[in-house]
Amino acid sequence: MDARNPLNIGAAARAMSNFGFHHLRVVNPYEVAFQGARSAVGAAAVLASAEKYQTVAEAVADCSLVVGTTAVGHRDLQHPLQRLEAGASVIRTHLASGACALLFGSEKFGLSNQDMSHCHWLMHIATREEHFSMNLGQAVAVCLYELMRDPDARPEPEKGSPASSAEVERITETLLTALRASGYPKLNASDSFEGAVRRLVRRLRLQTGDAEFLLGMLRQMVWKMKNKQ
Amino acid sequence: MDARNPLNIGAAARAMSNFGFHHLRVVNPYEVAFQGARSAVGAAAVLASAEKYQTVAEAVADCSLVVGTTAVGHRDLQHPLQRLEAGASVIRTHLASGACALLFGSEKFGLSNQDMSHCHWLMHIATREEHFSMNLGQAVAVCLYELMRDPDARPEPEKGSPASSAEVERITETLLTALRASGYPKLNASDSFEGAVRRLVRRLRLQTGDAEFLLGMLRQMVWKMKNKQ
Repeated sequence: MDARNPLNIGAAARAMSNFGFHHLRVVNPYEVAFQGARSAVGAAAVLASAEKYQTVAEAVADCSLVVGTTAVGHRDLQHPLQRLEAGASVIRTHLASGACALLFGSEKFGLSNQDMSHCHWLMHIATREEHFSMNLGQAVAVCLYELMRDPDARPEPEKGSPASSAEVERITETLLTALRASGYPKLNASDSFEGAVRRLVRRLRLQTGDAEFLLGMLRQMVWKMKNKQ
Repeated sequence: MDARNPLNIGAAARAMSNFGFHHLRVVNPYEVAFQGARSAVGAAAVLASAEKYQTVAEAVADCSLVVGTTAVGHRDLQHPLQRLEAGASVIRTHLASGACALLFGSEKFGLSNQDMSHCHWLMHIATREEHFSMNLGQAVAVCLYELMRDPDARPEPEKGSPASSAEVERITETLLTALRASGYPKLNASDSFEGAVRRLVRRLRLQTGDAEFLLGMLRQMVWKMKNKQ
């Protein structure tokens, strides 16, 4: 992390805290930026334990894998380059046997060629070619999210249970009763109208609680319509 | 998007531009924040075409799926809740047939219950329980990244081609020559030493170009050592 803006150091620290990464190392920061960052919202622990180094070599000394991040752009890279999706998978595998440093350059200039020469390979976030340069804090958040994401997360089943056919049919009948009470014109015009209403109610895929909820509303309206005359 | 801080609106717009989402709609923004955001770095087009609405209902009127985002926390939610990984997959499927709105609340308060009642379901980014609240611009970036990520991205094969056995053996021989020239002590102490050097060189998995590069270095050192005496 080589950042000159305290907001960027703070934002990076906050994303680290969100995703459970605790070791922030800052290379050669402007002292004022580093101190300013310590006041960033919700990243107190990460910032309090952040370490300051004079050189990239010292910052990554105990890591057995060093991955640089780059926005790609028009730079002619001397390193193998991985998309984040694939690179994160390599990093996760590595973490089982050794530490990994993820290197971010300053927002304005990115990593220098000198910085990159300490890396085993480079990684980039696939963005639009017309606008590839990301905000530093956002790039950190996206990279750490990818490292922690769960490829096996499955859609959560709906809460509650689907209404039974008996419940759904009670609604169908009460809706038809309400339509009759309201003088709905199509009711007698077509033999198939009851069937159309029955199919409509079933397409709603009502949950048990909602079926009760709707039934109560319809019954109230039926009561009102019948007692109005 | 209901944000009171121009930096947050600007950061959201920048992430949208990075990942190719062009329709930013802001509900009831503080006028000063909205105008301030228009000066954010690198999001000019998205911000210039941003639309302002008075209510959530108007902002999502033409969308057939409305997904709210939440940091979860301790709130008792009335909606089905999906992890981003799973929710994004549902959204991608929906986008084939209709528009989807992704709703973000203000950084400080999130979406109100009133806002959420316009949503079909809610989505959250899996973060540490001890620090679940994300910076708004980072949350937007992570959500849009997940929507655009390519699950089939594979590690890029190494550039260049692996050195041939002949090239690797030339290095092995030149290294042994250099060691002999240097008076390296173990050379004659063990019969298996040459084998150990040969295996070492093969573990380096050299690329063709690097094999040439190293060979040149070794030859220069051999030359220097032999001409020094």
